[in-house]
Amino acid sequence: MSERLIYLPLGGAGEIGMNAYVYGYGPAGRERLILVDLGVTFGDMDSAPGIDLIMPDLRWLRQNRDRLDAIFLTHGHEDHIGATGHLWEQLGVPIYARAFTGALTRLKLEEMGHPADTVRIVKPRPDVTEIGPFSVQFVPISHSIPESSALIIDTPAGRIVHTGDFKLDGTPVVGEGFDPIMWHEIAGEGDGVKVLTCDSTNVFSTHPGRSEALLANPLLDFVMAQKQMVVATTFASNVARLKTLAEAGVAAGREVCLLGRAMRRMVSVAVETGVLTDFPATIGPERAADLPRHKVMLIVTGSQGERRAASAQLSRGRYLGLSLGDGDSFLFSSRTIPGNERPVIRIMNALSEIGVDVYDADDGTYHVSGHANRPDLEAVHDLLKPKILIPMHGEHMHLREHAGIARGKGIASEVVVNGSMLDLSGDAPRIVDQVETGRIYLDGTVLIGAMDGIVRDRIRMALNGHALVSVIVDEEDNVLPDAWVELMGLPDRTRGGDDLARHIEGELAEFLESADDRTVADDGKMDEALRKITRQVAMEEIGKKPEVSVIISRLMAD
Amino acid sequence: MSERLIYLPLGGAGEIGMNAYVYGYGPAGRERLILVDLGVTFGDMDSAPGIDLIMPDLRWLRQNRDRLDAIFLTHGHEDHIGATGHLWEQLGVPIYARAFTGALTRLKLEEMGHPADTVRIVKPRPDVTEIGPFSVQFVPISHSIPESSALIIDTPAGRIVHTGDFKLDGTPVVGEGFDPIMWHEIAGEGDGVKVLTCDSTNVFSTHPGRSEALLANPLLDFVMAQKQMVVATTFASNVARLKTLAEAGVAAGREVCLLGRAMRRMVSVAVETGVLTDFPATIGPERAADLPRHKVMLIVTGSQGERRAASAQLSRGRYLGLSLGDGDSFLFSSRTIPGNERPVIRIMNALSEIGVDVYDADDGTYHVSGHANRPDLEAVHDLLKPKILIPMHGEHMHLREHAGIARGKGIASEVVVNGSMLDLSGDAPRIVDQVETGRIYLDGTVLIGAMDGIVRDRIRMALNGHALVSVIVDEEDNVLPDAWVELMGLPDRTRGGDDLARHIEGELAEFLESADDRTVADDGKMDEALRKITRQVAMEEIGKKPEVSVIISRLMAD
Repeated sequence: MSERLIYLPLGGAGEIGMNAYVYGYGPAGRERLILVDLGVTFGDMDSAPGIDLIMPDLRWLRQNRDRLDAIFLTHGHEDHIGATGHLWEQLGVPIYARAFTGALTRLKLEEMGHPADTVRIVKPRPDVTEIGPFSVQFVPISHSIPESSALIIDTPAGRIVHTGDFKLDGTPVVGEGFDPIMWHEIAGEGDGVKVLTCDSTNVFSTHPGRSEALLANPLLDFVMAQKQMVVATTFASNVARLKTLAEAGVAAGREVCLLGRAMRRMVSVAVETGVLTDFPATIGPERAADLPRHKVMLIVTGSQGERRAASAQLSRGRYLGLSLGDGDSFLFSSRTIPGNERPVIRIMNALSEIGVDVYDADDGTYHVSGHANRPDLEAVHDLLKPKILIPMHGEHMHLREHAGIARGKGIASEVVVNGSMLDLSGDAPRIVDQVETGRIYLDGTVLIGAMDGIVRDRIRMALNGHALVSVIVDEEDNVLPDAWVELMGLPDRTRGGDDLARHIEGELAEFLESADDRTVADDGKMDEALRKITRQVAMEEIGKKPEVSVIISRLMAD
Repeated sequence: MSERLIYLPLGGAGEIGMNAYVYGYGPAGRERLILVDLGVTFGDMDSAPGIDLIMPDLRWLRQNRDRLDAIFLTHGHEDHIGATGHLWEQLGVPIYARAFTGALTRLKLEEMGHPADTVRIVKPRPDVTEIGPFSVQFVPISHSIPESSALIIDTPAGRIVHTGDFKLDGTPVVGEGFDPIMWHEIAGEGDGVKVLTCDSTNVFSTHPGRSEALLANPLLDFVMAQKQMVVATTFASNVARLKTLAEAGVAAGREVCLLGRAMRRMVSVAVETGVLTDFPATIGPERAADLPRHKVMLIVTGSQGERRAASAQLSRGRYLGLSLGDGDSFLFSSRTIPGNERPVIRIMNALSEIGVDVYDADDGTYHVSGHANRPDLEAVHDLLKPKILIPMHGEHMHLREHAGIARGKGIASEVVVNGSMLDLSGDAPRIVDQVETGRIYLDGTVLIGAMDGIVRDRIRMALNGHALVSVIVDEEDNVLPDAWVELMGLPDRTRGGDDLARHIEGELAEFLESADDRTVADDGKMDEALRKITRQVAMEEIGKKPEVSVIISRLMAD
């Protein structure tokens, strides 16, 4: 049997977030495998209420665990490393990452009680990690977190470049800039690049991306212009932005205070691993509270409206002894990720209510994206001249658009979504299999399947309310004529003003009185009948059919 | 006691949507009152799951019903007339509106069984409606629905101009354009404008607004360029846009089909009331399905991602015999209202998956806003030269920004939110009272209070799941040692793999066996103890504290 090269996304292809991409090389069905990234995405009230984290379903990888040799992590964002702590155990293979990403991942593994030496720290190109048929190099590339890397994955079937998330930034403030000469070299080695697996998130942005370094002057001007306390929020992991903001604060004669655990952790890991140097000295919140307001700049978490983060806390009142008010300024040095608009707007209005002037970065003055825009993507296509382009990391419409651009240049391309296995051995990619995939949820401390029905039931209770019916069948198999009804999330009163629970109980009692023995003896029949009556009565009386749970207590003779 | 002029928003001030503004004139506490607009806003899963409509709490108006003389409606958008059907009964006064708005409102009243002649159709300025101390004129102004009107409210204390929602559009395609000469005249009459109560929704848009008429050419070019079926969605009430789209379709040699009840209703009411003329002939979906794809243009509802509207249905597959596929084109001739991003993006990706090319209006080519931007607002300030400006219809940050602009020009202004009563008698506005206000929900067919706890319980069940506990106390006041536990929206299994419900039952049985008579006799104590144990066990076993409902069935001796 001939060997083949395969690509199989388990997350991130057809969505933004939750990145997890498998590559394999070997005889069909017996390829040796590596996994690139293992990220999370976040739930929302619409589709996953109460869910803390969403992760890729790795059942296919578990089934093929003996073929998996390693996990490679491109960079330290949650949507690329966030599931390592929860899912590593299912795979049990070494994780390879550069120092900063590796340090962040180790913290996650340690939190879950896994050994830190699972993570092996590797150096960038020219260092090579040899794993089975794969020779992997980490290639510095710029993004909104330090030390982001593309991977060169050399295989007997040719060279793959997996970009990870990236932008073209020659001056990223922290970490290595995009180096076109090195990439030119990479494209020219051996037979060149066979496959480019490429970030697609910003494919609809038509202007060239802008450098992180462009923000220094506008941010300094901004801080200089403010009269009272200045607060700025951005993504905790955007260490370059934190540095630019902090330096603006210091240059404007202010003391800088970082608020938010995630942000302080990022800065300290970045300093420890040597990617961040010369970060200005900071003060604690107690000291900040003691200083005159015009001498303080807070840099805080919560740019996406997270309820428990510092931004939300400050908008609601006092936080760690600090409070905002008339004449203070609050800058969102960030963009709102689609879907987070409501909580962000809520914070902006709460700040407005207490007299704070709110500034956003909608016009781009105070924020730049970390992803390559369409012209940047095209520049990379042209630079690397791949034979095949696989659009990666994006919703379906992003992948589709990106594939269209590639095809327009004569590059073979295919839209591949989670669970589709692509054979990359030939000149054109070919979908050869669909594997079982999906999402799993972290719910409290338990992993549950997205399709287990648990979250579906929660959504139904939220939309329809929940009615509980309890009936008792005595020792002689007679049903007691009373039914007990409790309502949760439902109006107490009917349209006519009656007590809804008592009204339902009345209708149920009528049914129970005349129920025949066969029905009473059968839990299923009883359940169905009681549920149906409850829903019908509610529909008539309040215009809604609630979810119904029936408890039939059968008393046992002593 | 001297007479005073008051303003009291009950909805729309501090939010976008749910407009309801009270004006009063007379001795303090005995002012005669009118209400301007009576709208709804829409719930979302985050804050109001299962809620169909959100309306202003009119308790203050009900308490002062004998002082209320009339309701005036500025235009036919749901956030201005949507609550009339549900709340008119609480007020019982005549409703005044122009023909198109009035016809839409009559449909709402009739649906709820209220008399249609409640709505009195009035003509625009120079016609005047005299109501108590108020002389009211409807003044045509442009917006994204035909026949939108500002109100001139003349009182013994001076002239109020209440803009309603508006933009400055001299060529709005359907309905009257903005007429600066007439507004100049209005500003010059008598003592001029004392109070301008002014739309604030677009105060952060810094470029001048653009005319609806500018869309005709780009939309025609768009339709001409498409090869297969063309679908366009926009707000159902934007009759001008519907006309522009339909005319583009016809000019491009296509037959036009309107899909969606709301849209067909809007067009038919607009035609009946004479505001819409020359709307192209349309075909039904059956005929559209029979025609070659390049001969058809669908204009459909659901631009905001509404689950049951035509756009969502088409994205999910077949709808009314029509289906989309490879090479078809779908245009969002609309903007996504903040908070609706997720469902809109979901539809776009579903369309992408079936091969449809999706186009949005993000760059403004295919959509213009219906609201006045900052330069337009300033133009109106300058034209009307009010002594006082009250920013109206907007979130807190919009109102605050608008008030700041006014003050910068030397116009007295105050940020007034729902429930704040403003005395407008003097030269500067003064907040003189806070009245009880809030939101009420239409839940199925029942009106419930936002603070009743019903929706809070739904949210809690959605986040935490719901555990039901049933215990039985026998005729002799002995508790049976069995407890029945049912779980809804919770994992079946503990982290250790046990059955969670049985595990909780075991712990509850242990408690019940040793419970003393005083506890067993007391429903409150039993409830508390059972709830506490259930939550503790769940926390240990799955890391979550569910909502708990306890049913204690006390058996009665015969």
